[in-house]
Amino acid sequence: MRSILLDAGPPRTHAVVFDEGDEVMTGLRAFAAETGADAASLVAIGAFSDVTLGYFDLAAKDYRRIPVREQVEVVSLVGNITRAQDDDDPTRTVHAHVVVARADGAALGGHLLEAYVRPTLEVIATESPRHLRRRHDPATGLALIDVDPGGRSEAPRP
Amino acid sequence: MRSILLDAGPPRTHAVVFDEGDEVMTGLRAFAAETGADAASLVAIGAFSDVTLGYFDLAAKDYRRIPVREQVEVVSLVGNITRAQDDDDPTRTVHAHVVVARADGAALGGHLLEAYVRPTLEVIATESPRHLRRRHDPATGLALIDVDPGGRSEAPRP
Amino acid sequence: MRSILLDAGPPRTHAVVFDEGDEVMTGLRAFAAETGADAASLVAIGAFSDVTLGYFDLAAKDYRRIPVREQVEVVSLVGNITRAQDDDDPTRTVHAHVVVARADGAALGGHLLEAYVRPTLEVIATESPRHLRRRHDPATGLALIDVDPGGRSEAPRP
Repeated sequence: MRSILLDAGPPRTHAVVFDEGDEVMTGLRAFAAETGADAASLVAIGAFSDVTLGYFDLAAKDYRRIPVREQVEVVSLVGNITRAQDDDDPTRTVHAHVVVARADGAALGGHLLEAYVRPTLEVIATESPRHLRRRHDPATGLALIDVDPGGRSEAPRP
Repeated sequence: MRSILLDAGPPRTHAVVFDEGDEVMTGLRAFAAETGADAASLVAIGAFSDVTLGYFDLAAKDYRRIPVREQVEVVSLVGNITRAQDDDDPTRTVHAHVVVARADGAALGGHLLEAYVRPTLEVIATESPRHLRRRHDPATGLALIDVDPGGRSEAPRP
Repeated sequence: MRSILLDAGPPRTHAVVFDEGDEVMTGLRAFAAETGADAASLVAIGAFSDVTLGYFDLAAKDYRRIPVREQVEVVSLVGNITRAQDDDDPTRTVHAHVVVARADGAALGGHLLEAYVRPTLEVIATESPRHLRRRHDPATGLALIDVDPGGRSEAPRP
């Protein structure tokens, strides 16, 4: 995974390009850590050699895993980068959904759990100056984006 | 539906986050009215409890309704906000297409007619300073974006 | 194909609207040539009367053609515009992946080889001030984005 700054912005914009064998979720978290991207919107195309899609099971409060063990085109990858829930936690959360297409064109989609690139994945990451944070939602067990005007998402970037 | 300003811009950028039970088209029109967004590009991911997709039937000049009455991942939602055709009409038009994925990963897509969120939908709305307008197209019955250089889309935002 | 400038930027942003019968790849290359867009990110929705999807066959180092000879909704089109490999070559490369939906909502996807619009395609093109270049990758036969910090992608736009 290599990235270059396309626009110093605002909005600061990066191209993030993955090579064969790179795992995408790991690479996007590394990109966020390296560049300090706390809030960004992601759009990508490319191809995977292997991907595990997720479908959120509301009753189980967990993702069902849908392994796709074949070369697929990445026809759409849309996602975002947000800060962790705790102010002192430097971890970024990457949330991405993906649509992939098989050799006959059939499309499959889901939450992106894990994916290996072959031969390339081309991501455009557009940062926003205001942080977005996630907050644990007890009803679903998910970390949902916190947009409470009194909440921490309102804190401007220092 | 709650929104926060991510970037005062230009381009002015918002996060629009939907909660369980929110209807998406109604919520996006409310967002446009509340923030005065006359021209914006939308990208989103999340999940729906129920969605009605549309397929435009050119002969009938109307959308065929494709109801999907099950919990699905929203793997891609792409759309835009434009002004109505009439200068004096404050109504905004929301045009969005969506790809959803079932529990087995199978992807379905179409024009977004109606959708109920569960548990969340995360939308990034990027405004543009120039208005886009739609104009009724007699051939199809649709309101198509007017980019005639002599047309009203050329009017800069006051 | 007609375009209007939505935002003088940066980032310079355009709406590119296609009419019935327009071929998309030809139109996007014409848009890039007319506006001088050397590096841009593309997102679109609309409908096609006919589209040829591609699936990259790694062994053959070429795209398998998947013709879809029916009216489909364009539920997602994501892509980018980059410069050619050679500094003296004014040609722009358009790389786009697309998801289309049939009358029953079934989604198909792939690399966009050729597509005819009916009745409209609405593209938002967001330019970046830094060029992206592609470099021939002997392993796959593809022209991959070059993000080598010592490479030509680092050259700022004059």
